[in-house]
Amino acid sequence: MEQVVIKDLYEKKEHGEETVTVTGWLKTIRSTKRLSFIEMNDGSCLQNVQVIAEADLENYEEISKLTISTTIQVTGTVVDTPKAQQPFEIHASAVKVVGQSDEDYPLQKKQHSYEYLRTIAHLRPRTKTFYAVFKIRSLVAFAVHQYLQEHGFVYVNTPIITSSDAEGAGEMFQVTTLDLDNVPKDDQGKVDESKDFFKKETNLTVSGQLTGEAFALALRNIYTFGPTFRAEDSHTTRHAAEFWMIEPEMAFADLHDVIEVIEGLLQSVIKYVLKNAPDEIQFLNDHVDSELINRLEATANNKFEKITYTQAVDYLLESKESFKYPVKWGIDFQTEHERYLCEKVFQKPVFVTDYPKEIKAFYMRNNDDGKTVAAVDLLVPGIGELLGGSQREERVAQLEQKIADFNLDPESYKWYLELRKYGETEHSGFGIGFERLLMFVTGMENIRDVIPFPRTPGNAEF
Amino acid sequence: MEQVVIKDLYEKKEHGEETVTVTGWLKTIRSTKRLSFIEMNDGSCLQNVQVIAEADLENYEEISKLTISTTIQVTGTVVDTPKAQQPFEIHASAVKVVGQSDEDYPLQKKQHSYEYLRTIAHLRPRTKTFYAVFKIRSLVAFAVHQYLQEHGFVYVNTPIITSSDAEGAGEMFQVTTLDLDNVPKDDQGKVDESKDFFKKETNLTVSGQLTGEAFALALRNIYTFGPTFRAEDSHTTRHAAEFWMIEPEMAFADLHDVIEVIEGLLQSVIKYVLKNAPDEIQFLNDHVDSELINRLEATANNKFEKITYTQAVDYLLESKESFKYPVKWGIDFQTEHERYLCEKVFQKPVFVTDYPKEIKAFYMRNNDDGKTVAAVDLLVPGIGELLGGSQREERVAQLEQKIADFNLDPESYKWYLELRKYGETEHSGFGIGFERLLMFVTGMENIRDVIPFPRTPGNAEF
Repeated sequence: MEQVVIKDLYEKKEHGEETVTVTGWLKTIRSTKRLSFIEMNDGSCLQNVQVIAEADLENYEEISKLTISTTIQVTGTVVDTPKAQQPFEIHASAVKVVGQSDEDYPLQKKQHSYEYLRTIAHLRPRTKTFYAVFKIRSLVAFAVHQYLQEHGFVYVNTPIITSSDAEGAGEMFQVTTLDLDNVPKDDQGKVDESKDFFKKETNLTVSGQLTGEAFALALRNIYTFGPTFRAEDSHTTRHAAEFWMIEPEMAFADLHDVIEVIEGLLQSVIKYVLKNAPDEIQFLNDHVDSELINRLEATANNKFEKITYTQAVDYLLESKESFKYPVKWGIDFQTEHERYLCEKVFQKPVFVTDYPKEIKAFYMRNNDDGKTVAAVDLLVPGIGELLGGSQREERVAQLEQKIADFNLDPESYKWYLELRKYGETEHSGFGIGFERLLMFVTGMENIRDVIPFPRTPGNAEF
Repeated sequence: MEQVVIKDLYEKKEHGEETVTVTGWLKTIRSTKRLSFIEMNDGSCLQNVQVIAEADLENYEEISKLTISTTIQVTGTVVDTPKAQQPFEIHASAVKVVGQSDEDYPLQKKQHSYEYLRTIAHLRPRTKTFYAVFKIRSLVAFAVHQYLQEHGFVYVNTPIITSSDAEGAGEMFQVTTLDLDNVPKDDQGKVDESKDFFKKETNLTVSGQLTGEAFALALRNIYTFGPTFRAEDSHTTRHAAEFWMIEPEMAFADLHDVIEVIEGLLQSVIKYVLKNAPDEIQFLNDHVDSELINRLEATANNKFEKITYTQAVDYLLESKESFKYPVKWGIDFQTEHERYLCEKVFQKPVFVTDYPKEIKAFYMRNNDDGKTVAAVDLLVPGIGELLGGSQREERVAQLEQKIADFNLDPESYKWYLELRKYGETEHSGFGIGFERLLMFVTGMENIRDVIPFPRTPGNAEF
């Protein structure tokens, strides 16, 4: 008798009727007087194993009435079944009940809506769909780390609690230890911040980029990979209040280097998932998004397109599509424009570069034309904008001017300017919304369904 | 002419007087009328390269007066210097000034205290010590991911904003979008939480364990690796308000499995760092902690000791040491006790198991003796407690009793109990304070010096 996991059983091509013991959860059961067919899963892989328990087992009556999600320990013989749907099954010589599951277990065999499953986020990873999604989430995260580490990037944990607003925009969550029932006030009747934990107002970070730049200007190639927050009252399928960002930053690098790293990183991540989660990807292709495998393979194996913003506007103006939002030079593209470009014009991921400076962040580097900045967005089929990056403004005088133009407080950016004052250095970076990438890689259409415990307005359960 | 990085120059054993171009920051300069010796670094590795610029260069006067941290682009011939301290140097044919550094650059050649360097956290990674520390931080993080992924663990991002307190203890930061100058109140004069972003009081997580358990009971082996928070007014060298935790959780696993994974993980991580950061470790051994390499090699290559809490108490009672805190069965060990056990009694890392239930968390599994729980702490030389874990109480009745004994609100733990109601399953896990591990691996004695931008009471700059 050998304790095994189901994954190892599937990895063996042939079984010699060996006796094994498997412990896991009962997923389905069909019983007659003579025998029970049990499907069980032990978490080691997506697939269940079929167990056949016959009536001569001494606790057969107990077995035949087992409830879904009961923990069982099965000992039996592994028998190959080349003609059946599953490649092998276990003929049980003993089924021990480890932990009964109550009969009101919510995940009975019928289909459940994603909306309902979100209300039981502590149980939904027990479904095949969410098992697949969260396994892939883990693999994508690891593939990102692996690619960047192999390419000399240093992982930096930029701060979560911050006293600055990285982009001068974005609504933020405040972090405090003050008693909200009884907020201490100063002489002017304003909040007495000296009584707060950090002795000043602090917020949850919206981006690790600016502090990341400080590290790139010492360690050359760095990346952050951590949670970021937006207190926006958004109820769309693409926005969450808490999400993870990957933000690589490179010294001695321009916009072309950024584009090269993005393409290399994305293609490598997709190949890693296709190789390491074939069953999960196939399951999602069969049940969630029938275009998934095609899209992933096309993305992994073809060079991305590259056009300028101005060219993109021309493509949109020449098109016969009737867009809801009218197109002219200077607009911020809407999802309909982005998807038209990558789905209709090019049928592949498209880098769009050199956006008007007014619609991009203050830290992006001015181009010589006086109108645009060295920015890039990547548009992908099925989603639109997947990520964005830019060359950073490294010239002290230009950066000071932009801080003024954007009505930002120069005092807050003193340290950020010092990064340039002490040796101006060309540098560039980009940011990937991890969950948006996961939606692309899994085919899930709601960001709430790729986050273990999603946080949205009015929702912070668990 | 070839654009190269300094790391690649060091990796080549011999140089054939090839012409290269290197871009980086000037670290030191000594000039005479005839020539300048420049040390420069480009962030690709810890080492600088020495550049020799002679007076026949057309901008020699400019070169000879360059300030520290100026960005320069050097073109020249790589010449091996087997008899000198450095294995090679670059004889410059051109030195282009890319970005001047202001003369008030704070990191002049003299030594600076760690206290001072914390006030310029945006510049301190430019020093060799912090370059080494933060490079190692990145490698340790990656080694943790790699070991766990290779052993079938699934990475789970548990929520940062939470409406529950994972351990029923620990002071927490509140997260809010309410206007603190004008907090909305209800009829009773209490905070009107329905006006807050999540329509309830929310806090920053102190641990991802409980939600992690939900995933282990579906995906079998999982781990979290993310930021956690404590709003404790601690001013010690071992406490920060924001720190990262690694929390693996395993279904179908008992305390012995936990001990095995901890030992395997730590030894693998240390070997990875010794192999991938030999220069950084040597630098820290030379300048920060002369015991570092000995300690790391001993930890990586010897089996850890294992004793029970009761045995540990006996060792302490039998010792001739005069402890500040008196010893008797039932006490929570102090650092002096922990260090005595691993440094004096065993001279190696020691697992201590089966602690009195009163001094451990509610979720730890009761042993049959009625007095202790299936908990484990790992004590390491130089630090004391490095991490802790336990078998989790999976029996519904016992867990309900413990929630009552610890005066916790059963309603808040309803979902946590459901993880057991729907199939009781033996499971176990542990938590590593990432920064405490880094102090062990780098020899740095203050937690503020292993965190890029540390957050402590009164301190949230940048």
